[in-house]
Amino acid sequence: MANDTCLFCRIPREQILIDGPIAVTARDSYPVSKGHTLIIPRRHVASFFETTDEERQAMLKLLDEMKTRLDLEHKPDGYNIGINNGPAAGQTVMHLHIHLIPRYAGDRVDPKGGVRWVLPDKAAYWKG
Amino acid sequence: MANDTCLFCRIPREQILIDGPIAVTARDSYPVSKGHTLIIPRRHVASFFETTDEERQAMLKLLDEMKTRLDLEHKPDGYNIGINNGPAAGQTVMHLHIHLIPRYAGDRVDPKGGVRWVLPDKAAYWKG
Repeated sequence: MANDTCLFCRIPREQILIDGPIAVTARDSYPVSKGHTLIIPRRHVASFFETTDEERQAMLKLLDEMKTRLDLEHKPDGYNIGINNGPAAGQTVMHLHIHLIPRYAGDRVDPKGGVRWVLPDKAAYWKG
Repeated sequence: MANDTCLFCRIPREQILIDGPIAVTARDSYPVSKGHTLIIPRRHVASFFETTDEERQAMLKLLDEMKTRLDLEHKPDGYNIGINNGPAAGQTVMHLHIHLIPRYAGDRVDPKGGVRWVLPDKAAYWKG
């Protein structure tokens, strides 16, 4: 099932935070904020839309667990949760990973829009 | 349960795409791309982390259904799925909504990074 050339089929042990039977969590190698974490299914599957109910439940459980941990460790003021599904959406590693990005008050002049910033020309809807 | 002042507790009927018992889907009022859709629980709850398993299952089912519809209608090349959880993460309507953002080849010079663009100064990890 594993893909020999896939980064997320063989994550270095020191990057793994929670090592579950169906999914794992790991530090992002290029964190955009303190605590930036990835939730990754063990099975080599590229798209969220191809995951099973069991995989989804396991990933959401880990998402909850990481949120609880990060709240304690870093006390962020919010979170973005996000998936890039396909190269056109910015996916570079073709093994599904859910980003859990802690956000901190003042980490950006105006955080409004959040995940809308995947398309920056359209993100600032309030500027019409 | 509904909040009289909440936009997503009373979505105009013409914006609703799928009207489910536990969650609904609606067009985003300020779409960043063709087909930009929101998945919204009926219950007035701000955070994804406060949702029940039943709500999560209902929302993910609608996410799948909308993806199937959008594939047929607009044939996008990818999707971003994203949540802004808390004002520090860009949330402005304090009623949970999952963004399903269709992406099209060429809609941005370089789509790489995807949801990392919530923090633009750190997003372009490949530029070190």
